[in-house]
Amino acid sequence: MSPNPATLDVVGIGNAIVDVLGEVDEIFLTEHGLTKGSMTLIDEGRMHELYDAFPPAQEHSGGSAANTMVGAAALGSSAAFIGKVRDDQVGEIFAHDIHAAGVEFEVKPTEEGSETGRCLVAVTPEGERTMSTYLGASIELEPKDINPELVAAAEVLYLEGYLWDPPSAKQAMRHAVDISRGAGRRVSLSLSDPFLVDRHRDEFQALVEDSVDILFANEHEAMALYELDDLEETLLVLEEVCEVTAVTRGRQGSIILGPYGRVDVPVEEVERRVDTTGAGDLYAAGFLHAFTAGHEPEVCARFGSIAAAEVITHIGARPETDLQALVAERVG
Amino acid sequence: MSPNPATLDVVGIGNAIVDVLGEVDEIFLTEHGLTKGSMTLIDEGRMHELYDAFPPAQEHSGGSAANTMVGAAALGSSAAFIGKVRDDQVGEIFAHDIHAAGVEFEVKPTEEGSETGRCLVAVTPEGERTMSTYLGASIELEPKDINPELVAAAEVLYLEGYLWDPPSAKQAMRHAVDISRGAGRRVSLSLSDPFLVDRHRDEFQALVEDSVDILFANEHEAMALYELDDLEETLLVLEEVCEVTAVTRGRQGSIILGPYGRVDVPVEEVERRVDTTGAGDLYAAGFLHAFTAGHEPEVCARFGSIAAAEVITHIGARPETDLQALVAERVG
Repeated sequence: MSPNPATLDVVGIGNAIVDVLGEVDEIFLTEHGLTKGSMTLIDEGRMHELYDAFPPAQEHSGGSAANTMVGAAALGSSAAFIGKVRDDQVGEIFAHDIHAAGVEFEVKPTEEGSETGRCLVAVTPEGERTMSTYLGASIELEPKDINPELVAAAEVLYLEGYLWDPPSAKQAMRHAVDISRGAGRRVSLSLSDPFLVDRHRDEFQALVEDSVDILFANEHEAMALYELDDLEETLLVLEEVCEVTAVTRGRQGSIILGPYGRVDVPVEEVERRVDTTGAGDLYAAGFLHAFTAGHEPEVCARFGSIAAAEVITHIGARPETDLQALVAERVG
Repeated sequence: MSPNPATLDVVGIGNAIVDVLGEVDEIFLTEHGLTKGSMTLIDEGRMHELYDAFPPAQEHSGGSAANTMVGAAALGSSAAFIGKVRDDQVGEIFAHDIHAAGVEFEVKPTEEGSETGRCLVAVTPEGERTMSTYLGASIELEPKDINPELVAAAEVLYLEGYLWDPPSAKQAMRHAVDISRGAGRRVSLSLSDPFLVDRHRDEFQALVEDSVDILFANEHEAMALYELDDLEETLLVLEEVCEVTAVTRGRQGSIILGPYGRVDVPVEEVERRVDTTGAGDLYAAGFLHAFTAGHEPEVCARFGSIAAAEVITHIGARPETDLQALVAERVG
């Protein structure tokens, strides 16, 4: 029970990243040792090396939780984002875009150290994306960057799993979890990547069991969390430990486990998958928007599917069409 | 007559700009005093003010002549670009994209002074673009940035009219014209904007009459050059002063005046105009590519129309599909 009504729908914590999106062929992935569909962390040297080999690109603000907050705001939620950029041109682009999308973002940029983070997104012809991420200034996020009033005011705190790698950022997230729970709010986590889950399995298990109310994972991340090969078996475990779990399965739609049991929700059909960057982020956006508006899990999943479907029809991980109109048309 | 065979098809001189493209409605234009379809030069203060009000955007390398060189290279021409960026992140993006497109670009970035130039491109729903350009480091181009061997080696020197505003850049272009003519090459000019023509009418008239072999202008720019209200009358004058003139007329196609008389070439139909940014630039790219390949003016215009049609079907001013395949399919 929350002592005060929430004045904000959702606050997300994650990497503050600008995506550099370029179209490549399979050979490019092989030549540069990239595993299709994966996310690999790279250092500054490797980033410049890979960028030199990269095709002409376009820059779009990104970052997983940031995309989710932008999507939630586009649907009508009040949303805020916590993440770290540097006071450089790329950081200026990130801050501009998230503000212009109507998301509150007040964390002070760093004045020294690494540049603002960038993600080189290699998009192959069938629309799959392979990401090489230079976290840059993102890793400088610290507990003191967490505004306790902001977190306590939000109905849902949304955590990007990716940010579990940098130690001070992880501490900042743990601090935010304490504030959110202390204020009687809900905590939500996205597992982000199966390899990330491998790196932090014990901590993620404990976090999910002790503090997470709403878990987002794709099937590979979900199975990685409990080192199981079988999805159904994984779902039985998740049902026990989490209040609400949304497992996304790409073209197979999603499975929601909640207090009323299990619901399977089909994927929203699209004419052509252009670029799947941001599909999971926007699924979470739709889900959380509907959740904070008081909808049943099944409706939440439909909102998620519609928002995810929009973002894969174009280059870039943030919505480019009116999501509210889209949802009104399809959910009614 | 050229003493040596050209080893490069085309070298372009122009502003080195990164476009910031955002979708706006008509009200945005009115509120910010922007005239639809125009290009306005803005200073750094105004750029930041307008950017603050700008919607979420995406960044694509741009610059008129730079787009033309990228288009020519995409069609198979050997192309080089001369323009000035700063040693900042936006400059790094510009340099990366033009190199990755296969265009030679060797001008040293400035190490102090203005940031790399940016153009805020406001795209309205029907696909028209309204540009507010902060030239930034572009205006620092000087005669010593012109590599004489490079210019002398190119069959065509292509000048972006926009660069006539900054005095040292204009000097650099005049210097390049002298080198090109001295080496027996062809000089080509794009008039870029009717207001620009108003500002430099006498100089442009003299340049066109004395030094330009191939002139690119839209109908408004062409009429502005001789202060005439009538297009047909304007064409009669242009026929006298220039060896080849290509007058573009948006949806009405283009008119070519050349040694064999006048040809009217229809526009290439497209399903949907998404963003007209770069249409003129890519028309020049197709035209120059075909011209240096030895085609008749009519075929040059078809290449131009096809390249222009591609670029208006998506956001951004540089080709995103295989132009060589497109041209092969349509011209045969």
